[in-house]
Amino acid sequence: MHADRPREILNCHAGIAQVLVGTPRERGGGFGAGRPSYATSVARAMSNDAITTRSQDFAKWYQDVIRRGDLAEPAEVVRGCMVIKPHGYAIWEKIQQELDRRFKATGHKNAYFPLLIPMSFLAKEAAHVEGFAMECAVVTHTGLRAVQREGEKASLEIKNPLEEPYVIRPTSETIIGHYFSKWIQSHRDLPLLINQWANVMRWEMRTRMFLRTSEFLWQEGHTAHATHDEALEEVHRMLGVYADFAESVMAMPVIRGQKTETERFAGALSTFAIEAMMQDGKALQAGTSHDLGQNFGKAFDVKFQNRSGDIEYVWQTSWGASTRLVGGLIMTHSDDAGLVLPPALAPIQVAIIPIFRNDAERSKVVEAGDRARRECVDAGLSVVLDDRDELRPGAKHFEWEQKGVPVRVEIGPRDIESGTCVVKRRDKDPKAKTSVPLAGVGASLTLLMGQIQTSLFERAKAFRDQRLVRVDTYDDFKQALEVDGKGQFLLAHWDGTPETEQKIKEGTKATIRCIPLEGEDEPGRCVLTGRPSQRRVIFAQAY
Amino acid sequence: MHADRPREILNCHAGIAQVLVGTPRERGGGFGAGRPSYATSVARAMSNDAITTRSQDFAKWYQDVIRRGDLAEPAEVVRGCMVIKPHGYAIWEKIQQELDRRFKATGHKNAYFPLLIPMSFLAKEAAHVEGFAMECAVVTHTGLRAVQREGEKASLEIKNPLEEPYVIRPTSETIIGHYFSKWIQSHRDLPLLINQWANVMRWEMRTRMFLRTSEFLWQEGHTAHATHDEALEEVHRMLGVYADFAESVMAMPVIRGQKTETERFAGALSTFAIEAMMQDGKALQAGTSHDLGQNFGKAFDVKFQNRSGDIEYVWQTSWGASTRLVGGLIMTHSDDAGLVLPPALAPIQVAIIPIFRNDAERSKVVEAGDRARRECVDAGLSVVLDDRDELRPGAKHFEWEQKGVPVRVEIGPRDIESGTCVVKRRDKDPKAKTSVPLAGVGASLTLLMGQIQTSLFERAKAFRDQRLVRVDTYDDFKQALEVDGKGQFLLAHWDGTPETEQKIKEGTKATIRCIPLEGEDEPGRCVLTGRPSQRRVIFAQAY
Repeated sequence: MHADRPREILNCHAGIAQVLVGTPRERGGGFGAGRPSYATSVARAMSNDAITTRSQDFAKWYQDVIRRGDLAEPAEVVRGCMVIKPHGYAIWEKIQQELDRRFKATGHKNAYFPLLIPMSFLAKEAAHVEGFAMECAVVTHTGLRAVQREGEKASLEIKNPLEEPYVIRPTSETIIGHYFSKWIQSHRDLPLLINQWANVMRWEMRTRMFLRTSEFLWQEGHTAHATHDEALEEVHRMLGVYADFAESVMAMPVIRGQKTETERFAGALSTFAIEAMMQDGKALQAGTSHDLGQNFGKAFDVKFQNRSGDIEYVWQTSWGASTRLVGGLIMTHSDDAGLVLPPALAPIQVAIIPIFRNDAERSKVVEAGDRARRECVDAGLSVVLDDRDELRPGAKHFEWEQKGVPVRVEIGPRDIESGTCVVKRRDKDPKAKTSVPLAGVGASLTLLMGQIQTSLFERAKAFRDQRLVRVDTYDDFKQALEVDGKGQFLLAHWDGTPETEQKIKEGTKATIRCIPLEGEDEPGRCVLTGRPSQRRVIFAQAY
Repeated sequence: MHADRPREILNCHAGIAQVLVGTPRERGGGFGAGRPSYATSVARAMSNDAITTRSQDFAKWYQDVIRRGDLAEPAEVVRGCMVIKPHGYAIWEKIQQELDRRFKATGHKNAYFPLLIPMSFLAKEAAHVEGFAMECAVVTHTGLRAVQREGEKASLEIKNPLEEPYVIRPTSETIIGHYFSKWIQSHRDLPLLINQWANVMRWEMRTRMFLRTSEFLWQEGHTAHATHDEALEEVHRMLGVYADFAESVMAMPVIRGQKTETERFAGALSTFAIEAMMQDGKALQAGTSHDLGQNFGKAFDVKFQNRSGDIEYVWQTSWGASTRLVGGLIMTHSDDAGLVLPPALAPIQVAIIPIFRNDAERSKVVEAGDRARRECVDAGLSVVLDDRDELRPGAKHFEWEQKGVPVRVEIGPRDIESGTCVVKRRDKDPKAKTSVPLAGVGASLTLLMGQIQTSLFERAKAFRDQRLVRVDTYDDFKQALEVDGKGQFLLAHWDGTPETEQKIKEGTKATIRCIPLEGEDEPGRCVLTGRPSQRRVIFAQAY
């Protein structure tokens, strides 16, 4: 049986690693099976498998966290796509639930539109087609046949060419515009507030799991309004929903702002976004909300009779957030030991690990663990009692640590005697542990979840605020872009022209992330050209 | 204001119809807008818009119920596809929630695999490619460019041909098989229990909303096991989940059975299904569960080391249910007045309609209605208080009736005096109404929901049982296939050969729906050939 009292080895990752058997890939399947299990056939040297540190190579660290957290893997057989594994998908499901609740609370209804869009639809809005045509997957045929040539193996050939090809939706403004034109006749049909949960496809050149993949999962809101004011109100309402979700659920501080013309959605009058700072100091655009004006209304003839009896085009908005949020979550909170999840999005919030030396002890601590588990469930927590026999406690700690479980609880025979359990927070020093009474453990841990959630947000915000700096000269700008090997957000004056934006990008790789909505106007001079500016904008390198 | 006490006209659809303004298509958008609204611009003659009766034309009735219930509409611009409108999608969401809960409770985890499948993958399992190749949508290019020829309008052309085309998944056994081979090494990785919620595409020749569309939404379970026995246990477990869901949530009685070789899933050793009887007596296959044997294991090299150290192929299952269930729901319960929904799947379970003659009365009854609404919400019911001013009570009744809301509640000034409200059940004679005390209305209606749910199931079961008949000669068979203009399920002996099955199909359009799992073996003679048979099978015409 498990002879070690594992607290001694818990603080030593190398020590724990030795008891973990099988590569994460081999173990990946097991986690999908309802309870974790392990391949024992191959015991690879752990050194191949360790997580690269953030300071060594942030991009590699990111991939390692995903791999060791068993969140996803690249779909090497489908260019630029990924497989979202159960633990990763469970996080996405929690994101979906939280967002969906907020969309419904603001009056939106879900609907579903076709995956395929007639090619001609895409051409109807000039800026839109320019933005998306290059990256569309095109369906040209609707059947296959087996072909057998002499002396060759049978193979498949495509057949049934389409008269007009379809594209797989890169986004759905066009096809939804088409249906809006059928559904909207009168001002009484407005506002029309629709959301869709769907997969979309953009054939990307450089992909990175969760952050940029050819196929991704997202939601896209599409609304139509009688006036531009109402549409703008919606644009800001949904930007607010995203910002509130990011900060209160993801514990990820964001800056709301407007995009420049260069970075605007193809077909929009203006685009607003929330921007977050990752731990390498780069920016991640985490949600966007577009004022489409009457552009799609005109392209798809979406008209209504207003209160005065005149016919007008509707004012539309669209807004979206995607599986990219999972990438943002990872890069905001995780550490060199792996994934760190805020309690509000953790599929498993508490892992209870029983500690015992023999069967008599086992039955006692597992029973106590199950009582604690039930108390936690009753308190509304998501909890596992990890009573697997084939793993040592150290290996269990290691696994839940890498999976980002916010709190691990240990119960051993001595704990039962003292009526307590040992609690370790994922977001704190791994050496730190506290003792918590078993009676009322559900309530104590619920309270702790709130503290962890707040603490993660505060930590991320302090990091971001410290690296949000004002610069007034181009020399300072270039120097401040990277400090201690990490990026910063630069509040700088800009003369408002795409040319200057482009020149700064070429010179520094920094782009304008947004013109922040908060804060005061403050006259100044462009860092590059010295021309007058009314307001600072935020420059940063970005994902 | 609303001068009519509407109870008089409620029983007369023509009368109510006159107060309803705008076509359903025009009103469609409005329902998406968070609260119902109406286009008043066009007041079409209601006659064009009435619901065809079931006895007149069942297929037309089905379409009318969908249109008037605002569930969906054909996507005329994307061949064979549909747009699922908010009310239809809300039903699908409830179906998803109920099924997902059951999948998780039986140990399955959700994951997500790519939409696109390399063409070569499809060819790896011989029966599978034969079954699906003909109906695959094929992606051959990954970009478009605008082309401007002299004197012509600019148009789009496809570019960037792929070396190997992809197909849009018609189902995911192949690509999931590929990943299972990477995730599974040892018996400790088994069972692997995965489910995916996704869109799939099969280019169908004849389509019908919800029942058969080129793109549809579904879930597909994919599992791998160490032994054939365990796989078969899973096949039956999930068939049981579908049957329980169909009967207890959809209130739709089903027969569990095995499919014949002819009707089996392409690539499976055996297929099991649940079969329901629609109100026209035709059969609807509502969920399937397949024993894939080692077919995909061998095609995709999914091997594991068993307890004895030998390498074996895994045993796999797959099982699925789709938006087709919405079609089954409609055809099981709805009536000539429109949609009827069982409470367990009704997005809105209670519609409260205030009745008043003037502003003084309005404020009193709306206040009482809101109190009742809150009582219902507290009791866990989904409820709307329909306080729209632009509609008369009769029009409101008519709308909620067509949308299938299980219970409508009326509150007028006299009801407030007597401390009661008037309750009408959607599943009963529209003339029948009962008086229910306002105090405790939440609890009363919750009780009523249970009664409605049971009553809908019992009614559908009585209908089905009455039309499930034994026949022993081919003459009786042909006569019994249709009685009173509706189909029946025929329990008949069959000699077990595909040839006889085919001949009966050609002669009668009836197919073998399943070899029922329940019931005893009973020797007999095939209705067509007279050859011996061990057990009756179920024949019917089917969707």
